[in-house]
Amino acid sequence: MKLQLALDMIGLDEAMSILSDLQHVIDIVEVGTPWIIRDGLHPVTKIKERIEGMSVLADLKIMDAGKHEAADAFAAGADIVTVMAVTHDATIRGALEAAEKHGGEIMTDLLAVVDQETRSKEMVGLGVHYVCVHTAFDIQASGKDPLEELGVAARAIGGNRVAVAGGINIGTLPAVLEQRPAIIIVGGSLTNLRGKDLIDATEKMKGMINNV
Amino acid sequence: MKLQLALDMIGLDEAMSILSDLQHVIDIVEVGTPWIIRDGLHPVTKIKERIEGMSVLADLKIMDAGKHEAADAFAAGADIVTVMAVTHDATIRGALEAAEKHGGEIMTDLLAVVDQETRSKEMVGLGVHYVCVHTAFDIQASGKDPLEELGVAARAIGGNRVAVAGGINIGTLPAVLEQRPAIIIVGGSLTNLRGKDLIDATEKMKGMINNV
Repeated sequence: MKLQLALDMIGLDEAMSILSDLQHVIDIVEVGTPWIIRDGLHPVTKIKERIEGMSVLADLKIMDAGKHEAADAFAAGADIVTVMAVTHDATIRGALEAAEKHGGEIMTDLLAVVDQETRSKEMVGLGVHYVCVHTAFDIQASGKDPLEELGVAARAIGGNRVAVAGGINIGTLPAVLEQRPAIIIVGGSLTNLRGKDLIDATEKMKGMINNV
Repeated sequence: MKLQLALDMIGLDEAMSILSDLQHVIDIVEVGTPWIIRDGLHPVTKIKERIEGMSVLADLKIMDAGKHEAADAFAAGADIVTVMAVTHDATIRGALEAAEKHGGEIMTDLLAVVDQETRSKEMVGLGVHYVCVHTAFDIQASGKDPLEELGVAARAIGGNRVAVAGGINIGTLPAVLEQRPAIIIVGGSLTNLRGKDLIDATEKMKGMINNV
């Protein structure tokens, strides 16, 4: 199981400092959608150039022009690119074409998908590398977490194809680990910390993952 | 009815040159998703600073964090921001909050929505300013155009709330105009042209719109 750190509302210098501190515990660094909206793919390229030993995921949340948008992200240095599972299969196929050409991977995000069991299986049928169960930031406030949907997807396609995101913290991590997802995505519960607190909390989560 | 020009696979200098030539005929300039993915919101700010007399639409296709992402785009200079209609209502409400605060507008994009009649009505209920009927770039190749869905949305909520996009050209424009949409979005059929050809074609489309 891999640990993915999502960086959203952050500047490049602060991100580089955090990533240098966490290089030994983070497997995948995510350049989050809000950051891409502000600065485009430039942070992806800079992180890829300067930080070794981590994969870089560009959270584009592609809805259309899958081949072109994914190709741009892979060319900028991304290892993994996200596409919305709710969009047309043609878009997902286009992104997969770009991934194959560039030696990258596609993660499709189940956010706003109604029948997650069926769509997860369809994603595997199309050949996507990871399917992400994702409780939207905007509905986490209502108390929703991704645990139930993680169970549905893990049973449908096997945990080793599944990524999980949406408010995961050190308290909810044990229940997440029971489903053996391939990738555990953590954002605010780590990135709200700084310095030694951030390093300690990330090492603790990584330790829990490694002990499964 | 307004004419919106979608700029996607283009650099800033070329965009500025095109917009200077077309200032008298374009009502809204769209900074398209592929451009935002490459360069973030920076082109929105630069266009807003340098080109007068046009609104700027940032085609973010927001899926989550509606309030934050829309606020960033309005702060960067956007007049209109897009949100996917297929996502959670909470996200659309958040984007509308940001629009109200900044004096901007929200367009929700029906791409990948299955029941477009119901969802169009729900969009109006939430208070969105425009609902965009949108044939995805990735499925235009199969011969699909947005005319049928434009009719559905125009009957459901009235043409004056509807925008339409997806491969519109001078040949399909008359059928589009019959539905009296508020905004007609044109991309490749104009931006594949340059110089006098581009000016002539855009003036011709604008003339057809004004003659309705």
